[in-house]
Amino acid sequence: MIIQLSKNISSTAKSNLLNTLNDLQIKSNEVKTQFQDYIIGIPKTDFDIRNIGNMEGITDIHRVSDAYKLVSKKWKTNRTIIDLGDNVTIGGKDLAIMAGPCSIENEEQIENTVQHLLKNNIKIMRGGVYKPRSSPYAFRGLGMDGLKLFYKHCSENGIKVITEVMQVSQVEEMVDYVDIFQVGARNSQNFNLLDILGKVDNPVLIKRGMSGTIEELLASAEYVFSNGNEKILLCERGIRTYENAYRNTLDLNAIPILKAKSHLPVIVDPSHGIGLREHVATMALAGVVAGADGVIVEVHEQPEKAFSDGQQTLYYEQAEDLYRKARSLNSALK
Amino acid sequence: MIIQLSKNISSTAKSNLLNTLNDLQIKSNEVKTQFQDYIIGIPKTDFDIRNIGNMEGITDIHRVSDAYKLVSKKWKTNRTIIDLGDNVTIGGKDLAIMAGPCSIENEEQIENTVQHLLKNNIKIMRGGVYKPRSSPYAFRGLGMDGLKLFYKHCSENGIKVITEVMQVSQVEEMVDYVDIFQVGARNSQNFNLLDILGKVDNPVLIKRGMSGTIEELLASAEYVFSNGNEKILLCERGIRTYENAYRNTLDLNAIPILKAKSHLPVIVDPSHGIGLREHVATMALAGVVAGADGVIVEVHEQPEKAFSDGQQTLYYEQAEDLYRKARSLNSALK
Amino acid sequence: MIIQLSKNISSTAKSNLLNTLNDLQIKSNEVKTQFQDYIIGIPKTDFDIRNIGNMEGITDIHRVSDAYKLVSKKWKTNRTIIDLGDNVTIGGKDLAIMAGPCSIENEEQIENTVQHLLKNNIKIMRGGVYKPRSSPYAFRGLGMDGLKLFYKHCSENGIKVITEVMQVSQVEEMVDYVDIFQVGARNSQNFNLLDILGKVDNPVLIKRGMSGTIEELLASAEYVFSNGNEKILLCERGIRTYENAYRNTLDLNAIPILKAKSHLPVIVDPSHGIGLREHVATMALAGVVAGADGVIVEVHEQPEKAFSDGQQTLYYEQAEDLYRKARSLNSALK
Amino acid sequence: MIIQLSKNISSTAKSNLLNTLNDLQIKSNEVKTQFQDYIIGIPKTDFDIRNIGNMEGITDIHRVSDAYKLVSKKWKTNRTIIDLGDNVTIGGKDLAIMAGPCSIENEEQIENTVQHLLKNNIKIMRGGVYKPRSSPYAFRGLGMDGLKLFYKHCSENGIKVITEVMQVSQVEEMVDYVDIFQVGARNSQNFNLLDILGKVDNPVLIKRGMSGTIEELLASAEYVFSNGNEKILLCERGIRTYENAYRNTLDLNAIPILKAKSHLPVIVDPSHGIGLREHVATMALAGVVAGADGVIVEVHEQPEKAFSDGQQTLYYEQAEDLYRKARSLNSALK
Repeated sequence: MIIQLSKNISSTAKSNLLNTLNDLQIKSNEVKTQFQDYIIGIPKTDFDIRNIGNMEGITDIHRVSDAYKLVSKKWKTNRTIIDLGDNVTIGGKDLAIMAGPCSIENEEQIENTVQHLLKNNIKIMRGGVYKPRSSPYAFRGLGMDGLKLFYKHCSENGIKVITEVMQVSQVEEMVDYVDIFQVGARNSQNFNLLDILGKVDNPVLIKRGMSGTIEELLASAEYVFSNGNEKILLCERGIRTYENAYRNTLDLNAIPILKAKSHLPVIVDPSHGIGLREHVATMALAGVVAGADGVIVEVHEQPEKAFSDGQQTLYYEQAEDLYRKARSLNSALK
Repeated sequence: MIIQLSKNISSTAKSNLLNTLNDLQIKSNEVKTQFQDYIIGIPKTDFDIRNIGNMEGITDIHRVSDAYKLVSKKWKTNRTIIDLGDNVTIGGKDLAIMAGPCSIENEEQIENTVQHLLKNNIKIMRGGVYKPRSSPYAFRGLGMDGLKLFYKHCSENGIKVITEVMQVSQVEEMVDYVDIFQVGARNSQNFNLLDILGKVDNPVLIKRGMSGTIEELLASAEYVFSNGNEKILLCERGIRTYENAYRNTLDLNAIPILKAKSHLPVIVDPSHGIGLREHVATMALAGVVAGADGVIVEVHEQPEKAFSDGQQTLYYEQAEDLYRKARSLNSALK
Repeated sequence: MIIQLSKNISSTAKSNLLNTLNDLQIKSNEVKTQFQDYIIGIPKTDFDIRNIGNMEGITDIHRVSDAYKLVSKKWKTNRTIIDLGDNVTIGGKDLAIMAGPCSIENEEQIENTVQHLLKNNIKIMRGGVYKPRSSPYAFRGLGMDGLKLFYKHCSENGIKVITEVMQVSQVEEMVDYVDIFQVGARNSQNFNLLDILGKVDNPVLIKRGMSGTIEELLASAEYVFSNGNEKILLCERGIRTYENAYRNTLDLNAIPILKAKSHLPVIVDPSHGIGLREHVATMALAGVVAGADGVIVEVHEQPEKAFSDGQQTLYYEQAEDLYRKARSLNSALK
Repeated sequence: MIIQLSKNISSTAKSNLLNTLNDLQIKSNEVKTQFQDYIIGIPKTDFDIRNIGNMEGITDIHRVSDAYKLVSKKWKTNRTIIDLGDNVTIGGKDLAIMAGPCSIENEEQIENTVQHLLKNNIKIMRGGVYKPRSSPYAFRGLGMDGLKLFYKHCSENGIKVITEVMQVSQVEEMVDYVDIFQVGARNSQNFNLLDILGKVDNPVLIKRGMSGTIEELLASAEYVFSNGNEKILLCERGIRTYENAYRNTLDLNAIPILKAKSHLPVIVDPSHGIGLREHVATMALAGVVAGADGVIVEVHEQPEKAFSDGQQTLYYEQAEDLYRKARSLNSALK
């Protein structure tokens, strides 16, 4: 049950409400986000909602049968639009395109990519500075030095930065240089990281786990929301199956399902999905038709020289063809 | 290695060829289809292709490194177009739409569906008369009586029939009442059935196995081709994964991959894929964008009364909206 | 609901029963096996069992909530013991060991294997004469000629034969040369084949499908039983997962679960499971501890020269060590 | 390539070595553990090992073709034995048993469990104080207060404590109250956590990820080892598959494979594996036969009242029966 509180609820009214919930054997979780205050009530047994419905200080009240509550479409039927400032939004009529290299490599590469994005009117640049790598001996990213350079060139050009955060302690140092925090597939259920990302104001893109269920992705989003941050993006990036004709099984089924279950925007990542350059654009377009609000895609001036993920990274020319087609498909659909 | 033989190869030339192959320790498999004669050579060791290349009676010769040979795009770069007669083709510029109920139920239902198809200019009707069911106590289809009725109404109206064949012994009795034989997911590696379907002239649509790999689907197609039938359709219908938010994980990645590996047309089955009525059309359209040459979809006048698969079957109105959008997307793409 | 009929039920009593079931909207399926007569009632709605319980000609009546009925432990709590004659049984106190090559190759190999089995007091020999192969160009077995030789040498030495049947039309020609029919993983849901195997008296070993669920395996067994054959063995042989450090994920969890759900004996196939010679014996022993009633294992005098599956086939010496340990573990447990 | 350095290598000799490696285009990673110093060399191209082999200060040198190096059996063929002090070891002749509740709930429960362990001569108690839960509204453990109580009662009774650590910042506060750090399945690729656990002296048990490969588990262990901690336990706890007849597919195949690939001890967790109380003991025993060096199992005085995981938790009596059988099987095998 979600109880939306009025902005000016008195402390007496709030105490009364919490006491009543307690009497009804409903466990309450207070949630205060950048936009609103809520109480999430988890009832132990059945109860009569009329006992609460008319209490002072309540704006609205919704029963939500899903395991996740605040991210459910059952109480919030309007789709969430994430506002990044400077007229950059995600979740509205326009398709959000996020493009850039797998890893930030050096200043020249950043500048080069920024020019590519500007030319194509792309407003969000992706690029990793902390890289989760299976082997401890592999390149693990440029870290904060890379991020500062990355942010500098982007912000000077009106481009927003999305980059992966891997652990709690990085959040504070990164927060001023990041427009969207990305939580990677391996951290999709890193609950401490999700908790802390609920305490910042930056939007958070959560990737579905390597073999994460749709329910689990929504539960992870609930962690962020219930800690205070309503700005959440869900990302389908492929799941692990027995098939090895491609990198991961990009699960486009997840897109209409997520949009039916949640009010949050959904992003598709075809690069980590199918993972083969020649098919990335095809799957991106299929993702747009499946209902994605945005596409996140790896591009590089010279993919074959990229520090990581070269085989799934688009050449600029391929990417430009994709941007054009994706936007045109999106317009035709909306 | 695929050796294409000239139509009028002399028996002496052929013997010479087979002897030479034998001398080179190449196992030969003679293949005679409705269109052409081939020898598939499986070499035990490396050999010098010049020893064969100039022999009499050979039209062309191709090394194919894939495990499958005749269905590979490595030797036949033109895409295969299946001609069903009466100007109905699959694999060309137009999107092939196959629609109809899960099960054929009675004559009224057939007539009703035929009218729906005629109205929408759909040329191929699907409908099961032999149904694979997990439980022996479930409805297993109307059998030959149903098929005859089904075929009668379709052929009178210029509509082609696609229906599932479950076993070798059914092929002979069904062959005159079927335009396309469908091999279901559970029979995708029923090699005896594939062998026999290689001996008829009807096109064969092979569904990917429940957890079939793309390689296995192509190997199954190779069974049909190498037994003499070049008219093959590959069908993606969803695979089994850990996710249970929907019926099967419709694997749209398989579509661009299959089209890159094989010259055969690829059909998408969103009904058995995502398996939820409200999302079937979305996934069908995504499949078209992924490159499908056709869509096979379940429709019923009253899905809630269907004998089987009701929850994934479209209402006529939904289906009509899908046909329109699918055709328009297909035109835009081609 | 399973209604066990008395042997001498009068035709009037039976009609009365069927009519009553019909009146109660219970769909009846008559089942006549080599041992007993049953009616399986599938009710559409709830009903009062007292309306049936006291009718004439009924021995016993059980409600079974599982989707499968006759193979369920809910009505038959005693474990089924399969009697192969000559004091060879499966499902009792002794561990059943079935050993032999993947493929029957020639007479010498058969004789050699028979000597190995006799020396080790093994009473059942496995060996394929019809081989399901992904590629149409691979060796597909010696067929009936091989089977006749196989059976001759075994029967002369008191050894029972288990071999795979791939299609309906093979059953009749094979039936006199086979002691146990094996249904392979790819045919685990070949319902026509299961139907026909329900009409013979030979025991049938059904392998779990490549990605078959435990429920599906039991439903497949129900096909055989409900067609008239109570002599069924269930076989765990590994499932398909994302892991490729071994051939298949031998799912030992399935053994205690199958034994809790069904009264049928369970066999473990570690050769096709883990698929690596050095680990086959370990997994076989773990399978015995998990509760398997028998082990089916590939052995060959010279595995490296075997026509198929060499890398998962044991040397005689390894196999002998396994037989000894498996029997001793089994005795210790029972 | 693993280069073991002699304890008293001179700084000149080390510089020479590093320079030589650099000249050979071999990337070096210096590793200093509680036991030894190493250099891990990752060569870019082929090189002649004789250029390094005779240099000063080197004890031994091994080429390791696996992606993981220090945890590989290719260079260290003796099995690792973890010494917890007070004569408690893991990885030797005796089976290590770790038992206790899913969650630490209160002091009484700790005392009660300790008595149960003492009675059964169990030297290691498991119990969660930080619980990863899919829902933010679920019980998340007693935290440090619980851990201190847990450790107090255990250490007073000569019992070692194993408990899950969820994030980097917890390591420091937990380190004095923990004998073995456990990394849960969801954190199996939390590389920052693994890094920091490489810097403590406590043994670390790493669970295989939810859909983790065996290679990934070993790579995660490599993180810990290469950061300086050689005391690592690998734990198989079930993987995610399509089957839902039980909680997870406990993959016993992983045990012989892990023991063949690595020198580290392997623990089996049947509670999270099959996840059904009535089958936990069976799978534990099968795991012992598969080669596990230890078993970690959930027990509770009253499982039905446990705060979490009750349905997979053993009653004391069941657990005692398991301890006895597991030890007797282990003795029989070794």
